[in-house]
Amino acid sequence: MTSKAPIDFYFEFSSPYGYIASQLADDFEKRVGRPLRWRPFLLGPVFKITGQPPLVEIPMKGEYSRRDFLRSARLHKVPYKQPSKFPIGTVAAMRAFYWLDDRDSTQARALARALYKAYFVDGIDISAPATVIEIARSAGIDATALATALEDPALKERAKKEVDSAIAANVFGSPFFIADGEPFWGVDRMPMLEEWIRAGGW
Amino acid sequence: MTSKAPIDFYFEFSSPYGYIASQLADDFEKRVGRPLRWRPFLLGPVFKITGQPPLVEIPMKGEYSRRDFLRSARLHKVPYKQPSKFPIGTVAAMRAFYWLDDRDSTQARALARALYKAYFVDGIDISAPATVIEIARSAGIDATALATALEDPALKERAKKEVDSAIAANVFGSPFFIADGEPFWGVDRMPMLEEWIRAGGW
Repeated sequence: MTSKAPIDFYFEFSSPYGYIASQLADDFEKRVGRPLRWRPFLLGPVFKITGQPPLVEIPMKGEYSRRDFLRSARLHKVPYKQPSKFPIGTVAAMRAFYWLDDRDSTQARALARALYKAYFVDGIDISAPATVIEIARSAGIDATALATALEDPALKERAKKEVDSAIAANVFGSPFFIADGEPFWGVDRMPMLEEWIRAGGW
Repeated sequence: MTSKAPIDFYFEFSSPYGYIASQLADDFEKRVGRPLRWRPFLLGPVFKITGQPPLVEIPMKGEYSRRDFLRSARLHKVPYKQPSKFPIGTVAAMRAFYWLDDRDSTQARALARALYKAYFVDGIDISAPATVIEIARSAGIDATALATALEDPALKERAKKEVDSAIAANVFGSPFFIADGEPFWGVDRMPMLEEWIRAGGW
């Protein structure tokens, strides 16, 4: 496999495993020699299709998951504190990301990291647009322009198209990777994805 | 962690990932230096509690799973053919296992492997007691005694207690491992379990 095409990296800002994957992303890119295209989406519309409640609300599985979030973060040496309000709505975070991504994808990644850190390290509920704007401001992003953009129907439509496109690609969890059409779901599939790329499939 | 206590290895005979784990089990035991206690159970009663349909029936996730069964088997160099009838009821297989396990746990493992091979390699529907008995006979097990046992209410009760016990231990998927009270779900958590035992937790 000699492709250098980007690998789609789907994640939801309220997903612990998405956050962990985002922390592993740069090293992953270096090792596999292919860029990741960061694509936040929303799990809410997906769960409507799959008929599943959020992970932590599933009987038996919920308790396990809370333990596994912490354990997985420690395994990967990623700072993590379980947010008291969880999960949360992340449409504002997602919209802010795409607004910035259309202008500067490096800055958009930095914003994504800052949003994830606020939620999963500092325990800040990032659901409100005002909070997203403040975090963007702290990250050196033009907060006034972002505040205006977040009210713009064009940005809402832009972000909605991303969610629709994720669903059309059968992205049902976070993180979710698609490389050359092959889907990989979960932090625990990242080693498999890496091997898949190295071996050119099997 | 100097414990040499057995690690509980829960699996369901209709589970592709349980089958893959069973194929990795012996090498795993050798590497970690602790025995696995094989404990088949039934996912049906679990799904009633978690409110989830079988994996392949979940929209979006189902199609992914079928692809991932094959891909995971190939990654681990385990022979695999997707059974045409899937999933199936495996209560007879489970009962046969525990009947034998109470007499000879090594033989019970051999039977489990034979049943898994019949279903996931040879494409034989192992749901009927008569099929389980035939497979046992081919594996050199006293088929007449097994046939009698499968009709015995005491064995049914014995096996039911195992399912109840798995549920009481919050076992919600297959394979599922519990080591010193710590739960690990999935073939993809086997490396984490191994590291957990090596490091004595983290």
